Amino acid sequence: MQAEIIAVGTEILLGQIDNTNASYVARNLAALGINVFHQQVVGDNPERLDEAITLAEKRSDLVVVLGGLGPTRDDLTKQVVARHLGRKLVVDEAALAKIANHYKVTGRSLGNNDRLQALYIEGGQSLPNYNGMAVGDFVHQANWTDFLVLPGPPRELIDMVDRTAMPALRAAYHIDQRLKSRVLRYFGIGEAALAQKLDDLITKQTNPTLATYAKSGEVTLRITATASDDKAATKLLDEMENTVQNRIGAYFYGYGDENDLASVVVNQLIDRHLTITAAESLTAGLFQSTIGSVPGVSAVFPGGFVTYAASAKHQLIAVPQDVIDQYGVVSEQTAIWMAQQAKRLLATDIAVSFTGVAGPDELEGHPAGTVWIGLAYRNQPVVAHEYHFADDRQLNRWRSVLNGLDLVRRAIRDEN
Amino acid sequence: MQAEIIAVGTEILLGQIDNTNASYVARNLAALGINVFHQQVVGDNPERLDEAITLAEKRSDLVVVLGGLGPTRDDLTKQVVARHLGRKLVVDEAALAKIANHYKVTGRSLGNNDRLQALYIEGGQSLPNYNGMAVGDFVHQANWTDFLVLPGPPRELIDMVDRTAMPALRAAYHIDQRLKSRVLRYFGIGEAALAQKLDDLITKQTNPTLATYAKSGEVTLRITATASDDKAATKLLDEMENTVQNRIGAYFYGYGDENDLASVVVNQLIDRHLTITAAESLTAGLFQSTIGSVPGVSAVFPGGFVTYAASAKHQLIAVPQDVIDQYGVVSEQTAIWMAQQAKRLLATDIAVSFTGVAGPDELEGHPAGTVWIGLAYRNQPVVAHEYHFADDRQLNRWRSVLNGLDLVRRAIRDEN
Repeated sequence: MQAEIIAVGTEILLGQIDNTNASYVARNLAALGINVFHQQVVGDNPERLDEAITLAEKRSDLVVVLGGLGPTRDDLTKQVVARHLGRKLVVDEAALAKIANHYKVTGRSLGNNDRLQALYIEGGQSLPNYNGMAVGDFVHQANWTDFLVLPGPPRELIDMVDRTAMPALRAAYHIDQRLKSRVLRYFGIGEAALAQKLDDLITKQTNPTLATYAKSGEVTLRITATASDDKAATKLLDEMENTVQNRIGAYFYGYGDENDLASVVVNQLIDRHLTITAAESLTAGLFQSTIGSVPGVSAVFPGGFVTYAASAKHQLIAVPQDVIDQYGVVSEQTAIWMAQQAKRLLATDIAVSFTGVAGPDELEGHPAGTVWIGLAYRNQPVVAHEYHFADDRQLNRWRSVLNGLDLVRRAIRDEN
Repeated sequence: MQAEIIAVGTEILLGQIDNTNASYVARNLAALGINVFHQQVVGDNPERLDEAITLAEKRSDLVVVLGGLGPTRDDLTKQVVARHLGRKLVVDEAALAKIANHYKVTGRSLGNNDRLQALYIEGGQSLPNYNGMAVGDFVHQANWTDFLVLPGPPRELIDMVDRTAMPALRAAYHIDQRLKSRVLRYFGIGEAALAQKLDDLITKQTNPTLATYAKSGEVTLRITATASDDKAATKLLDEMENTVQNRIGAYFYGYGDENDLASVVVNQLIDRHLTITAAESLTAGLFQSTIGSVPGVSAVFPGGFVTYAASAKHQLIAVPQDVIDQYGVVSEQTAIWMAQQAKRLLATDIAVSFTGVAGPDELEGHPAGTVWIGLAYRNQPVVAHEYHFADDRQLNRWRSVLNGLDLVRRAIRDEN
């Protein structure tokens, strides 16, 4: 079984965006045991797309075409594939109803272009788009190359690959080998250091396979095992997880693809009925907004303070002016006062405070990246920790938030 | 002039790494006015690489091959290209001396494979690698397709593209034509609607070209003109901008690739010495954190409030309990009180408030996506606007933030 990926989009050809869709699809095909020997990229040009399809179908059993399903004039993928196959486009009525409803809710009128997003190739299988409007398409043909058509926006593509496209391939190709993955999440260790500690395992990997992935300051490790049944695959995963955790378990904080540090911490707070607040200077609300992104957080988070200026630290949460004057805002003492006062004012179990220098400029003689994070945890003495980040303004702020979450996680763990 | 990019590497084919090299090279070729109509990816397989080259040289004037120059058994790119062209590989003595010295310094012995990295194609131009060992190669041929061979590790590739590869192309192709781009930014109109309004221009585009791009609720339009000199290119851009703005100028808010709505608004506040605060419920600090991401914001932003729970709205900013009881938290009245009180407490010129239903669940009988945004602007009457978003929790929160920024932008504009 050989597949080929064709990404469609002038913005990819011109390098305005990276072709992450092709990587995502390639990984998923590899996981099904389907080989990918070629990828192509063409612009929003029907002739060149047709040439690419003609070339691909000669050498591949499955052609996966990515992008060009949207409502604009550039979006021609389904039309080109249908014409190439000599088939018509037909309406997915459920998808059309969803599009019409979306327009109704948002008070706009439905154009002809918008309707195009509900079309799929006659005789194919329309794949619903849970994160957007344009449906995908799987055309399984007896004795000829198959076609899988997927939307371009990554949120839409990833969801469709996971929910319907890969299951459709599994069913069509009778792939019954069990493939199981487990994602382990780490914080406080970089991807390179993590990979080095697992170097021998990664080098000789066959089954299970190991893949590290770094994103926004966290590192994940995906272990994937193939076996004849579920139980055997689970056993392979368990054994590899043990080996891995013996080496890097100290940095482990949770399982799962979507289960980021904020979700893990907020869910622990909800489980334990621990309420939390924050007083934020350099992060300016990013910590609270991040815990606010987790559904259900309202049970443990009443609100909090953004004390960006020194005056707000005094005015909103009554950090004594002489503490600020004596130690400066970028100091252990200010961080401790901020956490203590926030906890007291909102009568929560926990308060986290952030004060420091996001950059690009220095502050009070401290270089960009100097951050104090305070933690007031139940009846324990209030503490503050110093960090030195060496990234840009946004990443310094984000690393502060992650380390604040990690302090809360460790406090909960150490108490239990 | 037409170029084609071939990336070589099984790790790209399998999706283990993103093909960022291709984007980088594509952007640089575009900047020289060299069209890229095709990209290919093949694995570390000499036959398939040769096939890809054969296809590419038929339809392109320049073939850029990325990766496969290293010292391992997989690295065969230069050998395949040389054989394809019927040329020998010869030693770049300076590169070989550098490699030998590196091995001497690190106390290892030089292997035969390591020597391979100093080879280039006879008659070509060896391109030094300042961030690694393997040299690149530019083969400029009279009356036949040219070849540019670049290393795979991004640090090495980027440096070589900037320092020697693009200058070599400029010289070989006598590129002195000026290519100028201008990015126009829009908010409050979707990509589809915007493209529809420019449909005829997009259809017949030649010079300047038009490209729309949607990201995180904003839409950008890139106009790119080619001309013999800077002034002529600017004139083409000006003319097209006028035509475009006559149709969609109402949604325009700024210029530039990086200049997002938050940057535009914060910089207007700084310019006009207008201070701002916020009281946030469903956005939980995301508005403040977003304006906090802009360097220099400390001049106009003292801090603010996250009033997630109803109790915090009363406790932190003294929204009267009977307002909350009578109208609910998701109401015009609560939004107005929140903005008014936040402005008063921090004595700012402007306050924005957010209260609503992020989702996934409904609240007080209002469906997810119902949001009230309040605006207290200088001495004007405090107002609140109702929105209905139809996205997921995170996107509903983000759209709220963008609309809050836009309200501020419009208030500033209408005052002046």
